[in-house]
Amino acid sequence: MQRNLFTEDHEAFRQLARDFVEKEVVPHYPQWEKAGRMPRDVFKQMGALGMLGMAIPEEYGGAGIPDYRYNVVLQEEAARALVTLSTVRTQLEVILPYFLHYANDEQRSRWFPGLADGTLLSAVAMTEPGTGSDLAGVRTTAVRDGDDWIVNGAKTFITGGIQADLVVVVARTSTDPDNRRKGLSLLVVEDGMAGFTRGRELEKMGCKVQDTAELSFADVRVPAANLLGEEGEAFSYLGHNLPQERLTVAVGSVAQARSAITAAIEYTRDRKAFGTPVASFQNTKFELAACSTEVEAAQAMLDRAVALHVDGELSPADAARVKLFCTEMQARVVDRCLQLFGGYGYMMEYPIARLYTDARVARIYAGTSEVMKVIIAKSLGL
Amino acid sequence: MQRNLFTEDHEAFRQLARDFVEKEVVPHYPQWEKAGRMPRDVFKQMGALGMLGMAIPEEYGGAGIPDYRYNVVLQEEAARALVTLSTVRTQLEVILPYFLHYANDEQRSRWFPGLADGTLLSAVAMTEPGTGSDLAGVRTTAVRDGDDWIVNGAKTFITGGIQADLVVVVARTSTDPDNRRKGLSLLVVEDGMAGFTRGRELEKMGCKVQDTAELSFADVRVPAANLLGEEGEAFSYLGHNLPQERLTVAVGSVAQARSAITAAIEYTRDRKAFGTPVASFQNTKFELAACSTEVEAAQAMLDRAVALHVDGELSPADAARVKLFCTEMQARVVDRCLQLFGGYGYMMEYPIARLYTDARVARIYAGTSEVMKVIIAKSLGL
Amino acid sequence: MQRNLFTEDHEAFRQLARDFVEKEVVPHYPQWEKAGRMPRDVFKQMGALGMLGMAIPEEYGGAGIPDYRYNVVLQEEAARALVTLSTVRTQLEVILPYFLHYANDEQRSRWFPGLADGTLLSAVAMTEPGTGSDLAGVRTTAVRDGDDWIVNGAKTFITGGIQADLVVVVARTSTDPDNRRKGLSLLVVEDGMAGFTRGRELEKMGCKVQDTAELSFADVRVPAANLLGEEGEAFSYLGHNLPQERLTVAVGSVAQARSAITAAIEYTRDRKAFGTPVASFQNTKFELAACSTEVEAAQAMLDRAVALHVDGELSPADAARVKLFCTEMQARVVDRCLQLFGGYGYMMEYPIARLYTDARVARIYAGTSEVMKVIIAKSLGL
Amino acid sequence: MQRNLFTEDHEAFRQLARDFVEKEVVPHYPQWEKAGRMPRDVFKQMGALGMLGMAIPEEYGGAGIPDYRYNVVLQEEAARALVTLSTVRTQLEVILPYFLHYANDEQRSRWFPGLADGTLLSAVAMTEPGTGSDLAGVRTTAVRDGDDWIVNGAKTFITGGIQADLVVVVARTSTDPDNRRKGLSLLVVEDGMAGFTRGRELEKMGCKVQDTAELSFADVRVPAANLLGEEGEAFSYLGHNLPQERLTVAVGSVAQARSAITAAIEYTRDRKAFGTPVASFQNTKFELAACSTEVEAAQAMLDRAVALHVDGELSPADAARVKLFCTEMQARVVDRCLQLFGGYGYMMEYPIARLYTDARVARIYAGTSEVMKVIIAKSLGL
Repeated sequence: MQRNLFTEDHEAFRQLARDFVEKEVVPHYPQWEKAGRMPRDVFKQMGALGMLGMAIPEEYGGAGIPDYRYNVVLQEEAARALVTLSTVRTQLEVILPYFLHYANDEQRSRWFPGLADGTLLSAVAMTEPGTGSDLAGVRTTAVRDGDDWIVNGAKTFITGGIQADLVVVVARTSTDPDNRRKGLSLLVVEDGMAGFTRGRELEKMGCKVQDTAELSFADVRVPAANLLGEEGEAFSYLGHNLPQERLTVAVGSVAQARSAITAAIEYTRDRKAFGTPVASFQNTKFELAACSTEVEAAQAMLDRAVALHVDGELSPADAARVKLFCTEMQARVVDRCLQLFGGYGYMMEYPIARLYTDARVARIYAGTSEVMKVIIAKSLGL
Repeated sequence: MQRNLFTEDHEAFRQLARDFVEKEVVPHYPQWEKAGRMPRDVFKQMGALGMLGMAIPEEYGGAGIPDYRYNVVLQEEAARALVTLSTVRTQLEVILPYFLHYANDEQRSRWFPGLADGTLLSAVAMTEPGTGSDLAGVRTTAVRDGDDWIVNGAKTFITGGIQADLVVVVARTSTDPDNRRKGLSLLVVEDGMAGFTRGRELEKMGCKVQDTAELSFADVRVPAANLLGEEGEAFSYLGHNLPQERLTVAVGSVAQARSAITAAIEYTRDRKAFGTPVASFQNTKFELAACSTEVEAAQAMLDRAVALHVDGELSPADAARVKLFCTEMQARVVDRCLQLFGGYGYMMEYPIARLYTDARVARIYAGTSEVMKVIIAKSLGL
Repeated sequence: MQRNLFTEDHEAFRQLARDFVEKEVVPHYPQWEKAGRMPRDVFKQMGALGMLGMAIPEEYGGAGIPDYRYNVVLQEEAARALVTLSTVRTQLEVILPYFLHYANDEQRSRWFPGLADGTLLSAVAMTEPGTGSDLAGVRTTAVRDGDDWIVNGAKTFITGGIQADLVVVVARTSTDPDNRRKGLSLLVVEDGMAGFTRGRELEKMGCKVQDTAELSFADVRVPAANLLGEEGEAFSYLGHNLPQERLTVAVGSVAQARSAITAAIEYTRDRKAFGTPVASFQNTKFELAACSTEVEAAQAMLDRAVALHVDGELSPADAARVKLFCTEMQARVVDRCLQLFGGYGYMMEYPIARLYTDARVARIYAGTSEVMKVIIAKSLGL
Repeated sequence: MQRNLFTEDHEAFRQLARDFVEKEVVPHYPQWEKAGRMPRDVFKQMGALGMLGMAIPEEYGGAGIPDYRYNVVLQEEAARALVTLSTVRTQLEVILPYFLHYANDEQRSRWFPGLADGTLLSAVAMTEPGTGSDLAGVRTTAVRDGDDWIVNGAKTFITGGIQADLVVVVARTSTDPDNRRKGLSLLVVEDGMAGFTRGRELEKMGCKVQDTAELSFADVRVPAANLLGEEGEAFSYLGHNLPQERLTVAVGSVAQARSAITAAIEYTRDRKAFGTPVASFQNTKFELAACSTEVEAAQAMLDRAVALHVDGELSPADAARVKLFCTEMQARVVDRCLQLFGGYGYMMEYPIARLYTDARVARIYAGTSEVMKVIIAKSLGL
């Protein structure tokens, strides 16, 4: 269905992104998957092309255009080529907003140029072993000591944790039991700080081009100058960012589901069963028609949500609805498309298999489908 | 999710529609259901309020505003009050377009005033016993005889067929076997014409306020002046109108699914099970959250399609996608909402039971879900 | 899939049932549906044929063969002919067990002959307005007064309540707040007792051949001789009977789903769309293959459960699983089969429409799907 | 639900299998997964314990008990411990039957002892690149040359192809275009035969303990003594074996789905979210109750089918139904269980992730769900 989200500027950026993905990503992707990460050079290339700094003010080397739709375009172009740029996505859509909204002038000078040119990689460390997405359960502490904070604790499921130069750590800076929410702050832990160690990399079902790590902090001295935003405000900062984080997941889900359909159409046209192209069976046609219908519904919902988000009017409950619908849709669609590949769908050399294993996490991270339902039900007065 | 489809004018019309439905429809609705139709007076009331003639040119008593969104508003307001205005809907959204697009000046003078003020009720007679939605199979014939056409044949599943003053009949005016599609024309059969008889009313599962009838034509003499549009063009006329007809069904599906959720929220808040309000069970919350999510996806898709339709840019395949998605969604949502009513959901005095039996036809009429998939698959090149 | 549940005796009974249904039920069924009940004569016919008294001891006019499989056969044969014998089913499978297990010798002499020959119709009155299936909420009271109990209260959703000669009423005979469960007893209220009135018949979505009524009791004097079983034991009696009641629903669900498939196969073979039999489309084949698969899974599960039930070894949790699975399966299968009928599926003259509206209650009565899940979860230690 | 499939002998074997799996499989399983296969020693251990030769006649070192239920027990015990014995399963349930049914005495002497004691591993090579499960498309040829057959061609998706000592190859021994089915024969290609090379191992989404390989045959001289069964009969042999092959898949699906539930119950009891065990949420309870219900339905269907198979009365269409239902059920159940693990469900160190990736192939191999529907539809006369 004809979309109405993008301007000519976005489409120009799309062309840039498409070229980059085709030339610089697709040929190397299998290696990156084996390595479990994208090489740092790729970030620098993207930085040089201006793809990392769209939202960063011009004075720090960015383009000064904080328009979420550029992120959408980038994800769509990756998905179109059957790859993902996971760590880039996390940096641009999940982590950068913390810097953009809460960094003071000194921090901007220190970090923005590197975030824009791709020399500084970042991660956000929220989840802890055993707490999941429940912020009230954060046990990592930061105790003030002169001009420093002493950080102790452990984090897990940290996307990009191995490569990150800057880790935005959610830590408890006050243990007042009456106000557990007010006790959380954001501290930027830097690569090389004493006591900061990267634990093992977790082996995931899919999403192989991004590392997912355990991090630990043993008496890490973090200068007070690395406090991001106000002390005690992390809970509200995180809450403020979650709708975009969820939108981000939904954008990937829709784009990847669409790619799965395209791949299945191509495959079933070529492939014959019992002497006839698989695409000519009514079942194939109906399956793909149903998938296409679901993707278009999701796309319309998502595009409307992105437009609202760009206007600053997307409610948390609607972000939850969009994430819930788009990720559940992705699961159904990718599964149905894979089925049309027969045995080849189970072979990792076919991108559909990767789309399938990648997809399974979408219903889980950035808040599970169940957490989305809790949020939505509250908005219904239930 | 915040919508962006309507202007202040639509909202003013919405208020008019809401008042009308609450005062003039809701109190009488159970009687109309028993009678199997809405009384003619209601059409006249609506005509007097300007609700039937929005799209009819001013010179014939209408408002001259052919904006499909007024139809959307009317359906939404009916659904909001847990009723439908089925025959009105059919007249405005399915039949009136034929008159608007294809009537010549003389016909406009004859029929438009009555269509605008509610004194003329209409129906379209396409389906025949045994042919379903397959136009190629139409066997009703119209043979030219001087200034008349002699019409013979039988039609079935005709919404509003009992009450109609004007019946737009699809008839075969040429039997050239090489061009079966070109052989169809539209003839307006009027109440009282000799040989035109209404057969029995069909007992339907739901949709009780509209009659559905069999019609038969035995040597009915229809003046040539009652030919609507060009001879032999009915096939393309019908094809041209189908996207709007399908959109119409989708509009009802989304609005009714939304009403089902509202009704279920109210019911489960009041109703206790094992000493607790049903609304407080997590299952209730999750079911309604899932339903609300589906409705919002459908609404976004539908609103986008309506906007495209208003601009004349909705493709037949996208209309098919919208109908498929919205009607399948309605089935899932209404079923889940009904379940939350327990035994009361099975009792016809609860509107949820009516929503359920009404809903079942949406996946069937104006082209079944299967026909939609055929159309969509073709648009995918399959 | 080949079944192994029945012996030759059951098959002989099947033939009897089949003949009876074809000759005495099918021709009259539309009238019974309009009347909202089966005529009393039919019960007498069935009584004369020995179909009502299979489980009743021979001394009272029965066959003395308390084998649940005869009930299974009867339901299957009704479903095969696309009808239901709802009130008979309720009497044999839900109510009769109370009499069989708890009636004393005097009561047996009074009631068994009439239950066996079809002159006495019965109902069980458990549900009250506002309490649903929560027995703890029963507010109908029976207060001892000399040799009588004085019964006051109201019941609703009573299957066969209008026709019943004997109504087994669940009443609170003790109001000890510490032991609400022990306070319930079963009292047989008889037609004609002063103060016992039948309220209005409830209009249901389907199940039109059985009446569903509200009953009220205003100072009804019930002789102590009409106490069924022990005072204060109703809670455990009802709990004991529930597994069979749920099995009964499942038997109907599987048999009716099977009939829906048979009907759809026949219809789609005859019916042409676009010049081809609907049965020849791959979508039709796949839909029916999927439906057939579901029915066979349900049948295997059900047959195993019936075998366990006959041996007295069916656990309440397994009965809940069987009801949950078979009724949810029925909903899916009947819906898919109906879709294959196109517009005819929405017309009440086609039995598939009746199968659809009948089916909706199966997931609700005898404990909703949600109540089943509660029971099953407990059995899993959750 | 209480099962009635096994005797005491089977239960004794179950204990043996359970001990073996716990001691000899579970501790080494992660290594085997990394290696992509089970070590040959394991086969020998199993051979020594009598687990490979149950169906092989005693004179060749087996137990002479060709009872399919021992295979069921073995699969169930593997699944119970959250592992699979894929290659063993393939050997016992898919390949051994060809040897048992079609080997002549000389072949029995040569091969049975090794198959029984675990020194001979086998594979069956049916699928070719581009033909899928369509036997009519087999292009591997075997041309008679004196006492040998000269085999040329390529096979793919061969389970155990890397390790196999004996490969049962489906080859075209006659190219009569009028009888393509009659032209297929089974030839046993042995490790070390000149011209027989193993191609690359295919990287699969799951099922990591079994290798899946491409094999190629370039002028391989296979002695006529290695023809298995009659020349030209392979098509009927393969057809004869398919029901058991499908049953085999279903057995694994049900056992693994059951294990997923057990794992999810354990996990959700331990794991807290927002301060409460995840198992205490109603959503968790309802999800697991629904899963448990599906597994019990599948188990009942499967057990009935196994009993019929043991009696030689399982029809191909019923085998297809069982495979279709059980594998689709597995997909739904494992997915729902995984979701309850949150982020941990995506980590390969949790067996639920392995159950998920293993499960995806079940709807594909041994005939896809679509092929099952074709078979079932035919049995319905469609």
